[in-house]
Amino acid sequence: MRTAGSWPIAANMLSFGSTTADGTPNADAPAEAWRAQLQQVADLGFTEVDPTDAWLSIGELSDSRFAELLTVLKEAGLSVPSVSTTRRSVVDARHGSDYLRFGHTIIDRAPELGAEVVSFGFMQALTPAQASALWFWLADGHHDDLGDTETYRLAVSRIRELADHARDVGVQISLEMYEDTYLGTSELAVRFAQDVDRDNVGLNPDLGNLVRLHRPVEDIPTMFEKVLPLTNFWHIKNYARDEDPATGSYATHPTPLVQGVVNYRAVIRRALELGFEGVFVCEHYGSDSLGVAAINREYIREVLRGAGR
Amino acid sequence: MRTAGSWPIAANMLSFGSTTADGTPNADAPAEAWRAQLQQVADLGFTEVDPTDAWLSIGELSDSRFAELLTVLKEAGLSVPSVSTTRRSVVDARHGSDYLRFGHTIIDRAPELGAEVVSFGFMQALTPAQASALWFWLADGHHDDLGDTETYRLAVSRIRELADHARDVGVQISLEMYEDTYLGTSELAVRFAQDVDRDNVGLNPDLGNLVRLHRPVEDIPTMFEKVLPLTNFWHIKNYARDEDPATGSYATHPTPLVQGVVNYRAVIRRALELGFEGVFVCEHYGSDSLGVAAINREYIREVLRGAGR
Amino acid sequence: MRTAGSWPIAANMLSFGSTTADGTPNADAPAEAWRAQLQQVADLGFTEVDPTDAWLSIGELSDSRFAELLTVLKEAGLSVPSVSTTRRSVVDARHGSDYLRFGHTIIDRAPELGAEVVSFGFMQALTPAQASALWFWLADGHHDDLGDTETYRLAVSRIRELADHARDVGVQISLEMYEDTYLGTSELAVRFAQDVDRDNVGLNPDLGNLVRLHRPVEDIPTMFEKVLPLTNFWHIKNYARDEDPATGSYATHPTPLVQGVVNYRAVIRRALELGFEGVFVCEHYGSDSLGVAAINREYIREVLRGAGR
Repeated sequence: MRTAGSWPIAANMLSFGSTTADGTPNADAPAEAWRAQLQQVADLGFTEVDPTDAWLSIGELSDSRFAELLTVLKEAGLSVPSVSTTRRSVVDARHGSDYLRFGHTIIDRAPELGAEVVSFGFMQALTPAQASALWFWLADGHHDDLGDTETYRLAVSRIRELADHARDVGVQISLEMYEDTYLGTSELAVRFAQDVDRDNVGLNPDLGNLVRLHRPVEDIPTMFEKVLPLTNFWHIKNYARDEDPATGSYATHPTPLVQGVVNYRAVIRRALELGFEGVFVCEHYGSDSLGVAAINREYIREVLRGAGR
Repeated sequence: MRTAGSWPIAANMLSFGSTTADGTPNADAPAEAWRAQLQQVADLGFTEVDPTDAWLSIGELSDSRFAELLTVLKEAGLSVPSVSTTRRSVVDARHGSDYLRFGHTIIDRAPELGAEVVSFGFMQALTPAQASALWFWLADGHHDDLGDTETYRLAVSRIRELADHARDVGVQISLEMYEDTYLGTSELAVRFAQDVDRDNVGLNPDLGNLVRLHRPVEDIPTMFEKVLPLTNFWHIKNYARDEDPATGSYATHPTPLVQGVVNYRAVIRRALELGFEGVFVCEHYGSDSLGVAAINREYIREVLRGAGR
Repeated sequence: MRTAGSWPIAANMLSFGSTTADGTPNADAPAEAWRAQLQQVADLGFTEVDPTDAWLSIGELSDSRFAELLTVLKEAGLSVPSVSTTRRSVVDARHGSDYLRFGHTIIDRAPELGAEVVSFGFMQALTPAQASALWFWLADGHHDDLGDTETYRLAVSRIRELADHARDVGVQISLEMYEDTYLGTSELAVRFAQDVDRDNVGLNPDLGNLVRLHRPVEDIPTMFEKVLPLTNFWHIKNYARDEDPATGSYATHPTPLVQGVVNYRAVIRRALELGFEGVFVCEHYGSDSLGVAAINREYIREVLRGAGR
């Protein structure tokens, strides 16, 4: 069993964006640029990092560049317990088959990275309205068509295909909950995982994606109660949330784990009771994402210790 | 005079609710269940706890179960400087006389618990709308009828009766401010305390109850200036607060003491100038109530130290 | 080059207001009252303080009272790297020439205080609506008339006059960005600084003043990118910010630097790249301003250390 001190709690590289300061895509940037970013993470006390494809698509790197990445990770003292993919739905109408292929290349490299899990989801590229909003979740984004059973079946079969590949190399697949997708509610997420029906597939209960929305949300403990039994990986973040009954306005904003509307002390303890032993990845949007992630990492360790781990 | 390090600053057990995880009322749960909850509090560094009746109604416990409670409290290293009652108005139309009786039984047990104060208020059971709201204070709750002088007099006389009993056993009574009750504003609270007219009765200036409301609030320092001279106990919590002049929306949410709209550094220093020596009880709703309460406890100690205590 | 540990990071005395608790203007209060307030600052770990004229107008003190101030500052162990002026526009229609004169007297005393920079701005006295609002920025305040070229030229020439005086005594002038003034946007601020055209004049990128407003804001990194090259001093504060697209409501509130909508880790690092070596002044409104300022001071030092300083 993992202990509070050694539990893998990674920083998501998402907050660095997909380019260096001068606009060079990270994929084309020298390893020195990667090192500078990874060193910031290590300086904040992280010993684990998630090199999401929103930062650097490791499946698309040449072997030599991948070797460079392994070197700078090692020099920064960072291990990689997980790799997350972002906005690369395997049923994207235009790029789905490319994203499926990239998924396979990430799974191929997961063992060499030391990653135990690769995370997939069905959110798609930001719309222009999302890209120009104060927070991208304030504008409407991609919706999976729940009535389109053919695409649903394709989604299930492609995730199953990734899962079978992952099983062959000893890796788990996790499915990220995200509004308006096949994994958009606890019910839908559980059903999708059951339809995939593979032992090495679980859920990523990233309910921060839901509680920040300016729309009604289901009861939060009830949502977790449904998905925690299937949880094998965890993008964890929190939000302040309020509603104004008189006008119908919502107000939400990113906040450290301890302060937000989700009681993560209770939820993490419940996950442990249900056998959760997976990787945590600290995400945070806007503000000093990295600084808040470091605060959250310490919070998670404290909660784990409090739970006797 | 109390010092910063030894000042009683209790966690309110309210955040554990009234049942164990499996739905058993805490009153019927084995002492082992109490122990597990109290140990969480102790693990966060608390040395004091308020066993509010919203958690476990100590006045209704049999002698042997009460003895069990004393044992687990002792084993957890927790003392009990105060006992708060919640939503058990002694003038509740249906249960008022029961609640009065329970109040007496709590006072009876206060000395053996080591409690120096028992807190009463006039808020009543949550309405269905409150129970289903994101935050219960977003929906309208019970209103005391300020024009009903007969009930007002009954409230005064029942609190006086509790106060006289409490005086006999060396205990203080505190009256919790709460919107739309006889203690709903600073003016009303002061008047009520004066009408009760007992030396061992003071106010619990829980103004967090007011500043979170989606309605105009009085000037905060002015409210405290009125009630601090009568304050003998303190449910302390804070909220972020904003208003949108163009639409009339309000936005408030629970936040750690240092961050919210009430400047507790200034208010606590002012209370000390006025002679406050009472117990603090850290309350917090939603989110990780217990984690925030622990942060708040350290904040209060720092403010007390800064004030030379 | 300054290092993280020794970088001047001052508390703004603004949070103490302009009078003592009993209503005596600080200018008329005994030095003992100043000492009590400054000691609170020192007790929170500050080694630097900004004695803004909103607290105590040092230019208006007699020589003997100024000597008293220097003594209590020394006894409290506080140095004064900067002096900020607040709501004393040198083109105030009624008091502009007085405020210009006070500005000169502050510059005269800056060297003896050890201050390297004096900050000026064009915000004017709070309107009654601002003074009675929950947050003063929720009501409309003074607007500089951008079409009135005569007053604009007077503003430029008076700041130039202050700058020339400041240069003679080895002091910098900084210009505080504030909505609806000549320094109300990044574009305007850069243009104004260029029009003043003095080597010892720079900008104070107090963008917290803008991001808290209930109106659309420009892209935050873009704003900083324009003004950081001219920045020589920094009133630093942060806000949570949200907008509700359906109703048009805004919700903002003061929050610690690490948590707010501005990513100060990124912005401070960028400022350092551009050569920033100036003083930081921690400001915060509402809540426990001083407590949050102390948290922010430690945050800034951590970010500076992370940037290799």
